[in-house]
Amino acid sequence: MDSDFGIPRELSPLQQLRSQYQPELPPCLQGTTVRVELGDGTTVSEASDSHIIARAFPHTLGQPLAHFLRETAKVSDAHIITQLPSIRVGIVFCGRQAPGGHNVIWGLYEALKVHNAKSTLLGFLGGSEGLFAQKTLEITDDILQTYKNQGGYDLLGRTKDQIRTTEQVNAALKACTDLKLDGLVIIGGVTSNTDAAHLAEFFAEAKCSTKVVGVPVTTNGDLKNQFVEANVGFDTICKVNSQLISNACTDALSAEKYYYFIRLMGRKHSHVALECTLQSHPNMVILGEEVAASKLTIFDISKQICDAVQARAGQDKNHGVILIPEGIIESIPEVYALLKEIHGLLREETGMRLFFLLLHPESDDSAQLSQIETEKLLAYLVETEMNKRLKEGTYKGKKFNAICHFFGYQARGSLPSKFDCDYAYVLGHICYHILAAGLNGYMATVTNLKSPVNKWKCGAAPITAMMTVKNWSQNAGSTSTSIGRPAIHPAMVDLKGKAYELLRQNAEKFLMEDLYRNPGPLQYDGPGADAKAVSLCVEDQDYMGRIKKLQEYLDQVRTIVKPGCSQDVLKAALSVMASVTDVLTTISSSSNGGQQTA
Amino acid sequence: MDSDFGIPRELSPLQQLRSQYQPELPPCLQGTTVRVELGDGTTVSEASDSHIIARAFPHTLGQPLAHFLRETAKVSDAHIITQLPSIRVGIVFCGRQAPGGHNVIWGLYEALKVHNAKSTLLGFLGGSEGLFAQKTLEITDDILQTYKNQGGYDLLGRTKDQIRTTEQVNAALKACTDLKLDGLVIIGGVTSNTDAAHLAEFFAEAKCSTKVVGVPVTTNGDLKNQFVEANVGFDTICKVNSQLISNACTDALSAEKYYYFIRLMGRKHSHVALECTLQSHPNMVILGEEVAASKLTIFDISKQICDAVQARAGQDKNHGVILIPEGIIESIPEVYALLKEIHGLLREETGMRLFFLLLHPESDDSAQLSQIETEKLLAYLVETEMNKRLKEGTYKGKKFNAICHFFGYQARGSLPSKFDCDYAYVLGHICYHILAAGLNGYMATVTNLKSPVNKWKCGAAPITAMMTVKNWSQNAGSTSTSIGRPAIHPAMVDLKGKAYELLRQNAEKFLMEDLYRNPGPLQYDGPGADAKAVSLCVEDQDYMGRIKKLQEYLDQVRTIVKPGCSQDVLKAALSVMASVTDVLTTISSSSNGGQQTA
Repeated sequence: MDSDFGIPRELSPLQQLRSQYQPELPPCLQGTTVRVELGDGTTVSEASDSHIIARAFPHTLGQPLAHFLRETAKVSDAHIITQLPSIRVGIVFCGRQAPGGHNVIWGLYEALKVHNAKSTLLGFLGGSEGLFAQKTLEITDDILQTYKNQGGYDLLGRTKDQIRTTEQVNAALKACTDLKLDGLVIIGGVTSNTDAAHLAEFFAEAKCSTKVVGVPVTTNGDLKNQFVEANVGFDTICKVNSQLISNACTDALSAEKYYYFIRLMGRKHSHVALECTLQSHPNMVILGEEVAASKLTIFDISKQICDAVQARAGQDKNHGVILIPEGIIESIPEVYALLKEIHGLLREETGMRLFFLLLHPESDDSAQLSQIETEKLLAYLVETEMNKRLKEGTYKGKKFNAICHFFGYQARGSLPSKFDCDYAYVLGHICYHILAAGLNGYMATVTNLKSPVNKWKCGAAPITAMMTVKNWSQNAGSTSTSIGRPAIHPAMVDLKGKAYELLRQNAEKFLMEDLYRNPGPLQYDGPGADAKAVSLCVEDQDYMGRIKKLQEYLDQVRTIVKPGCSQDVLKAALSVMASVTDVLTTISSSSNGGQQTA
Repeated sequence: MDSDFGIPRELSPLQQLRSQYQPELPPCLQGTTVRVELGDGTTVSEASDSHIIARAFPHTLGQPLAHFLRETAKVSDAHIITQLPSIRVGIVFCGRQAPGGHNVIWGLYEALKVHNAKSTLLGFLGGSEGLFAQKTLEITDDILQTYKNQGGYDLLGRTKDQIRTTEQVNAALKACTDLKLDGLVIIGGVTSNTDAAHLAEFFAEAKCSTKVVGVPVTTNGDLKNQFVEANVGFDTICKVNSQLISNACTDALSAEKYYYFIRLMGRKHSHVALECTLQSHPNMVILGEEVAASKLTIFDISKQICDAVQARAGQDKNHGVILIPEGIIESIPEVYALLKEIHGLLREETGMRLFFLLLHPESDDSAQLSQIETEKLLAYLVETEMNKRLKEGTYKGKKFNAICHFFGYQARGSLPSKFDCDYAYVLGHICYHILAAGLNGYMATVTNLKSPVNKWKCGAAPITAMMTVKNWSQNAGSTSTSIGRPAIHPAMVDLKGKAYELLRQNAEKFLMEDLYRNPGPLQYDGPGADAKAVSLCVEDQDYMGRIKKLQEYLDQVRTIVKPGCSQDVLKAALSVMASVTDVLTTISSSSNGGQQTA
């Protein structure tokens, strides 16, 4: 009911306290003047995709990175503020709710009002549907009161995730024109940010003056690339799930008779499962990426688990905790084939039911993964095999007992962690600066996130620079392929990355030694309140910082080797730069040569 | 593996902080001297049961209540301590693990050592099995370090719940004799405390000098009676579940398209579901006690839910959260009949499987409720009915979508709340004083729990005074009944009590107005850290305090009307006391007359 949106909510004492929390801004965004520095034009990560992407994005491809820097202001603040025109901005929640989403709105609102009190922020009610139907709620201080630092998307609500069909993009264009919006901010994951990029291009083509900005908010943590280190919501989701996983571990260790099979949300890739494993040290996790890389069948996986159960029984351990990412099911070749078939059947509306499970097609047209009870399927297979081994005498331990759990929707509506509150609030501020700089088709970014807020670096990257193209084979065995639409594809867990390496180093110990670790319930005070995701902290990130550092080196060389410098300096510079260029050309072409489509 | 018990655990920063937390003692237990005051002999609550209970407990029935009071010590502390003999005590976890259990051990250990450093506390490893097999671990400061204020039962572990068969009680007797125990402390719920009472009687009969003490520790919250206000673990379980329920509510309100059907653990009765409802205000809860009282069939229940869904759709609300206590299934007449049948089949080991569910017989011989997916059954029935109504045109709302969750084992291993830490620690201390007072067959009790710790009243009640006898009809329609063994029966939710009244007053608003309240994750600092269960706070409790107050009045009358007092005073006293006695006799007999077996 629309009239429900934005109404004040009854807050519990803890919620009240949280609503008083004021996130800090990094130094570059403090004060009333922020300098934007545009870097070199961007490219796409796969050279082979560039012509396809270029064709789809004639206006918005190749735009430069933007860095927001502190102004060493020489003009009085008051003067600056009165110079800034008032602007009108719309904001919309797209896709699944993630803890922290409300703070993007709050941050953007604050930034708008600080720079011009007459600026307007309109929230679209009920997601993209509200955008198409021009249902808006003007954001005010009063409205924000009971939503600051709170979970859910209930301030504005959300419905469908898509802004994609001709009808939809036209409706969006009409809404932005009718409402005289200078900017449209889209809060969402890979799908919604892809839509944002296409919409930006469409607007540019249509000479619509509304600039489109994307914000990386998704609990799956799969909107990761050179420019984006983390997604709003992921930190909270992993902490809430880790708390529950740890509780199950403690329980397993106390009762000593159950194996818990716990399925975790997180869509196709296993970022959530990996992070939760690093936080709470369950006995085993099976990542979809490992399954795909090793082409494991469901029987291979269940055999792996059986062998683990048997090895543990040999040490008198008849309990354990095993994590199953929801996306694993898609990574198993034979199941993937089955899913495609089911999906086909669903399209024909045969109303087929599988295992008492109702499969609804999702808005992105893939079977709704969270409804497939993989944990039960695996527990059943393992139980059957263990009983067989027991009968045959190859297993001599106690009877295998499994209890299955699905940790799904109970984390998504959580109060956001401090990290997610801060990150979302800062991203909201950045959205303002992107719009103030007149940029279109950009995503707000913060890098160096593993450091404290006062070391965070704020910027914006063209969404097109994060895109790749996927080719789909029409039929198995057929050589004809169809070329996909350029899109941000969900990032896989990097099996060469440091987070995965950390898991591998400890996997055997986690499996056998019950090194269960309980981070406890999400705290807002005391130890753990400022903890960050393990996978965030172990990775060397700050790609944008390094790009910037490189530019500084190039500038220094240019300064040193100015016309008039000595022959020796010039000679040395030429020689060194020649080999540098050589090496980089070689590395660069070999990394492209490794691509399938190169 | 036994060698795993009591080993130091790796603690997270929050766990480390918690391990440093020192619970407070109520004034009556502070210092080294505690005075025990014995009140009047106790009776059983159902007069009609008394002769059966008397026959079963010739040695331990009718013992007085004990109150522990502060000694206005005149002797030096040191002197007192050296006077106390060293004692040997065994302690065992029985039944399902509850957060806080470890603190009973810690509290008892502290009390033992304060009074005589030579006293010994032996933990039995692996629950009652460890008791029978005499597997022990001597508790030391070092061992306790990483278990103070921590969840689970992993310090000692637990296996089966029973100490009941002749073989088992004989093994327990032998263990206590062999180990020269002065006391045996049993930590558990209704079943284990019933066993404790029978064991105490058996020991008394066998002239074994070991005194048996019970401690009310169970997440179900169903060990409630005049003497016991709350159980260790219930507070934590309800807070963890309320956090998750609230998250689901926020999620429902954000997506506006799902109904969450959430099943909660809690065994036969619905205390956990009631408390969680009062904490987080979901749209609907169906208590087993209501179902039983109104004799609702499963179709009545699903129709109630359908009507609610329809009414909400009339207000454009297509989302909601519905709590289903696990025990509800046993309260439904036709399902109960079915369960009895299944249970019979299981005994015959036909290995029957129902709905992909594996039903294992529980140690207390009832079907394992937590494995019956009532939430899915109800969601399915509601969906079918809503689709029918939609087709018939009697329902005009959106398509009904349900998502099912089971909040079970993920709460049980939680870090205990401050309340549970404090309560368990104090109960541990009380166990010592019960043993020091030479009492046998008592349960440690704390009353006035809703007040701060410095107002808590500590005591002990004979377990027999909490017992009732249930008669079971042999066959439907048959008049022959078998008389049950005297036992503490799980308390039902009192449909005349204040907690239920509070729910009824708000039920309509909760249903229609989405007054969702999010208590947030369990905090150890700041708002909410000292919150207590709503159902604890609304009830007028402190039965033992009131019994004590009554005795004070009687003593005052006796003092005023001493021989030698004036005729007028005596006359007035006689007249007043005659009517008081009349009134109480009438009330007392009518309340017994209301009993089935009277």
